[in-house]
Amino acid sequence: MDSRTGLPVVGMVGAGQLARMTHQAAIPLGQSLRVLAQSPDDGAASVAADVMIGEHTSYDDLLAFAAGCDVLTFDHEHVPTELIRSLATAGHVVYPGAHALEHAQDKAVMRQALTRAGVPCPAWRSVSTVDDVAAFGAEHGWPVVLKVARGGYDGRGVWTLTESAAAAHVLEPDRAYIVEQRVPILRELAVLVARSPYGQVSVWPIVQTVQRDGICVEVIAPAPDLAAELAGVGATLAVRLAAELGVVGVMAVELFETADGLLVNELAMRPHNSGHWTIEGSRTSQFEQHLRAVLDYPLGTTTMTAPWVVMVNLLGGPDGGMGIDERVHHVMAQWPDVKLHLYGKSPRPGRKLGHVTSLGSDLAEVRARAGAAAAYLHQGGHR
Amino acid sequence: MDSRTGLPVVGMVGAGQLARMTHQAAIPLGQSLRVLAQSPDDGAASVAADVMIGEHTSYDDLLAFAAGCDVLTFDHEHVPTELIRSLATAGHVVYPGAHALEHAQDKAVMRQALTRAGVPCPAWRSVSTVDDVAAFGAEHGWPVVLKVARGGYDGRGVWTLTESAAAAHVLEPDRAYIVEQRVPILRELAVLVARSPYGQVSVWPIVQTVQRDGICVEVIAPAPDLAAELAGVGATLAVRLAAELGVVGVMAVELFETADGLLVNELAMRPHNSGHWTIEGSRTSQFEQHLRAVLDYPLGTTTMTAPWVVMVNLLGGPDGGMGIDERVHHVMAQWPDVKLHLYGKSPRPGRKLGHVTSLGSDLAEVRARAGAAAAYLHQGGHR
Repeated sequence: MDSRTGLPVVGMVGAGQLARMTHQAAIPLGQSLRVLAQSPDDGAASVAADVMIGEHTSYDDLLAFAAGCDVLTFDHEHVPTELIRSLATAGHVVYPGAHALEHAQDKAVMRQALTRAGVPCPAWRSVSTVDDVAAFGAEHGWPVVLKVARGGYDGRGVWTLTESAAAAHVLEPDRAYIVEQRVPILRELAVLVARSPYGQVSVWPIVQTVQRDGICVEVIAPAPDLAAELAGVGATLAVRLAAELGVVGVMAVELFETADGLLVNELAMRPHNSGHWTIEGSRTSQFEQHLRAVLDYPLGTTTMTAPWVVMVNLLGGPDGGMGIDERVHHVMAQWPDVKLHLYGKSPRPGRKLGHVTSLGSDLAEVRARAGAAAAYLHQGGHR
Repeated sequence: MDSRTGLPVVGMVGAGQLARMTHQAAIPLGQSLRVLAQSPDDGAASVAADVMIGEHTSYDDLLAFAAGCDVLTFDHEHVPTELIRSLATAGHVVYPGAHALEHAQDKAVMRQALTRAGVPCPAWRSVSTVDDVAAFGAEHGWPVVLKVARGGYDGRGVWTLTESAAAAHVLEPDRAYIVEQRVPILRELAVLVARSPYGQVSVWPIVQTVQRDGICVEVIAPAPDLAAELAGVGATLAVRLAAELGVVGVMAVELFETADGLLVNELAMRPHNSGHWTIEGSRTSQFEQHLRAVLDYPLGTTTMTAPWVVMVNLLGGPDGGMGIDERVHHVMAQWPDVKLHLYGKSPRPGRKLGHVTSLGSDLAEVRARAGAAAAYLHQGGHR
């Protein structure tokens, strides 16, 4: 409890852009997010007042960090489950808890839970040898998708294989993998849900996510032309999963839309790239909602603030002789209604430096505006 | 320049709630607001990473603070003009500059400039003796309003006098005063304008401000039933004044609406309580716009995000056995679409602790919601 304000203190392990945007959302709630950063240069560490430098893999660091917090939550999913269990045993409140979080850390655990719950997924199997992969391919057809069970993200740790021999170049001993059927998909969707310890649950409209090289580049809210029935199925699925897994905080459910309906692709148990549009596009942003949830506050309204909201990620581009400050000038001049979000990182080609959001009533126009602004920031000129 | 991000650094002198909300707006711009705080407990000091403790009346402190900044701006108007001039002479970029700022610091200077510019004001005169006040009252009628030229705010330093003898209890030697006609007003309005060094100017819709005991308690955007002609007059007046006074940043023009049109009451050269509604209610908030202006970035769109936006200030109330955290719970449960803004202060009766904002298409309903939520937070129960 902060003795001055009379409000509880939230600590976030990890200090990347998600923590940075969570701190931004914490300020109006009378909060000041406490962050455990690896470096003072981390995106959140450079904007927050209450920063501890330490390692999320060190129990001593986690314990020292937790001492100043009423509740602990996460910017990422890389804290070892056993350390989270130890923190809870030591009496610290940790949301999401180890049990829930494991479903976002380990794809095999996630697939088992979903299969048990009767949630539609691509066919899958835990594998460790080339023969395992070959057997799965023979049964479900090629190509297949091979994934590390733990530690992959943003396209890393995922391989599409057209024949079993290729698995030999990927599989490492002492690592767990799953293999999945490569289902023909119409597009990728995501549904974001928040749940409080009390059990209150709230969803945002389902969005379409556009990926390039395994990285989300664009999010359209709501997903255009989504059948009302599928929207209902997706929302119900997210609410049910949040309750069954005992999630507290925000969970993103990444979905495949196929000719036969929705399949769950991945789960993330934290604010998620597919929800950045909510900062301006929803009455309650995913970051505010995550804080409300882990504080066990009642959740906020998730009504959209415009008919269409489009978010485009900003990836570092060529230097091209034009610094980021000049690019920002030009973009603000040309698109005075596009909202910029820069994460305070040093620019580097391919690095996720920020995102832009555009809102309005004409989808084509809203998409074009966000895309053009992000492209200008990326390459220092018009595409 | 921040060598990591390649972006310029803004420093704000003063670390109250305006700096706190400016830091919140700075984060998405890739910035981290540097603040000069009097105490680590100041509203902005408890949420910002780059805090210097010092006095805004000490030139040494200001100079040390300025050394880390590309541009200096202000959370309040209490920095002595001569120190601002010295900073500028020493090569520091200060927005608004001493010349512009003086019009918000000294009511006599402001009234002279407005009179010179032909801007309608209440009749006024600089006074120093009871006889001066008596002569003004004899000419313009009683009551009159006596104001300290420098240092008054939130109802302090303002007295309504029904006869000249009362001035004897107020007037201190060595202090400058002005006296003004007490004009019959229909209501109070405010128009907020932002101007960049380049000369770009942008206004928000005129709002109605509701005062109690000299303190703004409620702001309605836009001002209901305002004649289109008056709205045009007010916006034009604000744009013209911003240019004539050389304002850089946000300026609030407080207005009286009278049967004969608009009169200027006060000027403030910083983000202002009458503009807090813009955080959710405008595509660009006053805090983001102030930053864009002092950075000489192109200004953002000021379109409203809803037909009606109402802000109600939250003043500290009776303890009543219910802490702020419990009040927040109840308010969030009952009004999930009201946006809370807590300034991180220790609660104390009468203290401005935060504000709430409500948006929608039915003004009566929007006002009722914001008012009820703020009242609940104030008194720990329904009014």
